[in-house]
Amino acid sequence: MKLVVIGGDAAGMSAASQARKRLGPDRLQIVVFERGHFTSYSACGIPYWIGGAVKERDALVARDPDAHRAAGIDVRLRHEAVGIDLDRRAVVAHDHATGDEVREPFDQLMYAAGAVPVTPGWARIPAGGVFGVQTLDDGDAIHRWLDADPRPQRAVVIGGGYIGVEMAEAMVNRGLAVTLLEKSPQPMSTVDPDMGERVHHAIAALGIDVRVNAHVEGIESDGGRVRAVVTRDEEFPADVVVLGLGVRPNTTLAADAGIPLGVTGGLRTDLRMRVTGPDGPLDGIWAAGDCVQTTHLISGQPIHVPLGTHANKQGRVAGINLGGGYATFPGVIGTAVTKVCELEVARTGLTEKEATAAGYAYVTASVESTSRAGYYPGAATMAIKMIAEKRTGLLLGAQIVGREEAAKRIDALAVAMWNRMTVEEMTALDLSYAPPFSPVWDPVLIAARKATDAVHAAG
Amino acid sequence: MKLVVIGGDAAGMSAASQARKRLGPDRLQIVVFERGHFTSYSACGIPYWIGGAVKERDALVARDPDAHRAAGIDVRLRHEAVGIDLDRRAVVAHDHATGDEVREPFDQLMYAAGAVPVTPGWARIPAGGVFGVQTLDDGDAIHRWLDADPRPQRAVVIGGGYIGVEMAEAMVNRGLAVTLLEKSPQPMSTVDPDMGERVHHAIAALGIDVRVNAHVEGIESDGGRVRAVVTRDEEFPADVVVLGLGVRPNTTLAADAGIPLGVTGGLRTDLRMRVTGPDGPLDGIWAAGDCVQTTHLISGQPIHVPLGTHANKQGRVAGINLGGGYATFPGVIGTAVTKVCELEVARTGLTEKEATAAGYAYVTASVESTSRAGYYPGAATMAIKMIAEKRTGLLLGAQIVGREEAAKRIDALAVAMWNRMTVEEMTALDLSYAPPFSPVWDPVLIAARKATDAVHAAG
Repeated sequence: MKLVVIGGDAAGMSAASQARKRLGPDRLQIVVFERGHFTSYSACGIPYWIGGAVKERDALVARDPDAHRAAGIDVRLRHEAVGIDLDRRAVVAHDHATGDEVREPFDQLMYAAGAVPVTPGWARIPAGGVFGVQTLDDGDAIHRWLDADPRPQRAVVIGGGYIGVEMAEAMVNRGLAVTLLEKSPQPMSTVDPDMGERVHHAIAALGIDVRVNAHVEGIESDGGRVRAVVTRDEEFPADVVVLGLGVRPNTTLAADAGIPLGVTGGLRTDLRMRVTGPDGPLDGIWAAGDCVQTTHLISGQPIHVPLGTHANKQGRVAGINLGGGYATFPGVIGTAVTKVCELEVARTGLTEKEATAAGYAYVTASVESTSRAGYYPGAATMAIKMIAEKRTGLLLGAQIVGREEAAKRIDALAVAMWNRMTVEEMTALDLSYAPPFSPVWDPVLIAARKATDAVHAAG
Repeated sequence: MKLVVIGGDAAGMSAASQARKRLGPDRLQIVVFERGHFTSYSACGIPYWIGGAVKERDALVARDPDAHRAAGIDVRLRHEAVGIDLDRRAVVAHDHATGDEVREPFDQLMYAAGAVPVTPGWARIPAGGVFGVQTLDDGDAIHRWLDADPRPQRAVVIGGGYIGVEMAEAMVNRGLAVTLLEKSPQPMSTVDPDMGERVHHAIAALGIDVRVNAHVEGIESDGGRVRAVVTRDEEFPADVVVLGLGVRPNTTLAADAGIPLGVTGGLRTDLRMRVTGPDGPLDGIWAAGDCVQTTHLISGQPIHVPLGTHANKQGRVAGINLGGGYATFPGVIGTAVTKVCELEVARTGLTEKEATAAGYAYVTASVESTSRAGYYPGAATMAIKMIAEKRTGLLLGAQIVGREEAAKRIDALAVAMWNRMTVEEMTALDLSYAPPFSPVWDPVLIAARKATDAVHAAG
């Protein structure tokens, strides 16, 4: 039996590895087409490598092609899949090294082509110095550009989401003057504006020139090099531009093969990560990672969440099933976390805007507390916000902004939400307490108490 | 209506404050008898105050008597309750300042007398320099002893549990030579021996002379001052001795009043913290904190867990009900955490020994991972152990030993266990991921995967 994998990063290689664990090379041949130079790397780590916190590119590689080959996985780098023939069950790939086209038949297909950066027309200019941040190859290109002569002095980052904010900090760490352009009234619009405001202040304190309500209309170049970013109101000189406008599922090949896409543009799958076609699940066709859509378990809606942790989980689930085992991926609840300098930002579930869009009526509660007992050295302020359904009190969402030991508290909230706890039930939770770790009422419990009061008050 | 509260620390004052919030002074008179000099303080913070991390005693006081008085709560310090007359509904207290006895009638009684240190016969010697660590008054006494002439040089801490280990570190920080005597084969017997061994190494690395399997037989004194601690095998010179042998519920007064105690020696209560008497709940008699027993929700057994966080929650629940509201305290799952120098130790649920005692058949899984992505600066090793029920895979217990950002991860595990998740269900949990906070597989998820494999393998 032969498995062909399209995409050699987290999802694809997790699937390949899990399938291999269950079926040896005598029972399953595995061929992987990867268009870049690397396998199994942490794209989420690229900003830290650009900024210098991570010294070596190879530190981001969890498992290189040779390690996979040693496990009997035939990894073909710089091979870009360009066509899928579902009827005859074969993948066509372009070998960038030789220029050849190769055709590889399969019994099982794992589609893990990832995502591609959202690139508006104005960003597609034939000039150097404009970068997305999706692949290690992107990272290499950024490094080369930043190290070249003339050395870039001014960076403009477009988009104030996770990648944008992380890249803005990285550019500051590299000594550049940085402008961050965000079209919303606050950066980090994955949290509510009241929490986003705290992030805004923290970024500005790094010396980043944060411009909100900034509508980019074009990028100017000069002699083949980027020169400036132009918004509706202003022009920002730039020697390097980073696009942090998000990504969309890389599903062109699948769509061309006749597989209908979900409303988010991602592939639809069943719980075992089998791709859903026009007439139901497709036999032996699997997908995982940034190219699929999943279900948000709190809103009940399909959602596209390109995140390494989901890609790994989904890839593992696909590989276990591919290998004859049983595992499922039920969906996500929107947990995410980031760090800007010392500021930690975390969220899970729905923001107010998302809760409204999902049809919920809700109450909110926000509290400020500390990471440790107030009297213990290093106690740092943290803000927690909870969103609970009106009447039932079900926890619908939570957000944390704080400093060290703050953000990871979101996990307790995520597990509570996953289990459909009410905020009142949460007030009884047996969370860990000792002065170096928490006030005697953990901030999560204080927020749960206040949210309980809000639910009662709303009736 | 009059409420009399016995004990002015966490449980008692939380109850008083919550009752006051609901019923003003015109509707409810509140009298508090507190035998010491302080109210609403953090006993858990005492080791950090002794060690110098916390500079001022008053930093440990969350709310002083005058603040409570301003809220219309009649706090009477140095008044030790010495008798309860349930039939005539009155408390008799001894005023240590005047030597007088006062009799206070009540409509509602809140019993929050806390715990007393376990003090074997050999520890009750008429010499200075032997201390428990329960109250701020104890802390004052230790400080005075350590500062006095001749200045103590050698400390012996008896008992290697939370307080013992924390006090041993405090004594090191004060510049004393410290010996820690523990009767078990490992200190920190609240975690399994394999995890306790890691704690043992960390304590020893602080320069503490850790002696396990040490059976203390006596304390020697000389001229009214402690001189040495004698074990079955050896004698340890000591200028100061700290008793960390645990505590027992301070329920003598209740028992004398005819209230039957639970198997742990603690008072039994209903879900609303109403004391259970010979024939069921007693009208208007409440209890909370270190003097009550509660239910371990995983073992189903009664348990005595003297911990500030439970005392606060229980006191709040009692006070809400006292004030005419509704709240419940369902029980605990054994979550606890501590820090020894840089080492963080956390647990929730049952240890192997406790699981066996409860009647469970189980499997275990232990993993080592890191607090951050392996390539991110500051990534520190952490060990996680999970205990899962055989066949069902229900999470029964978890333990973590690591460094910064390790221990608070126990909360996600505690919430999972609270909701009766299986380890296999846990592999799908949407926990937060970003390189500064976690490897792409959070250590909790890695442990859940390994535990799932163990459940399957055990059949």
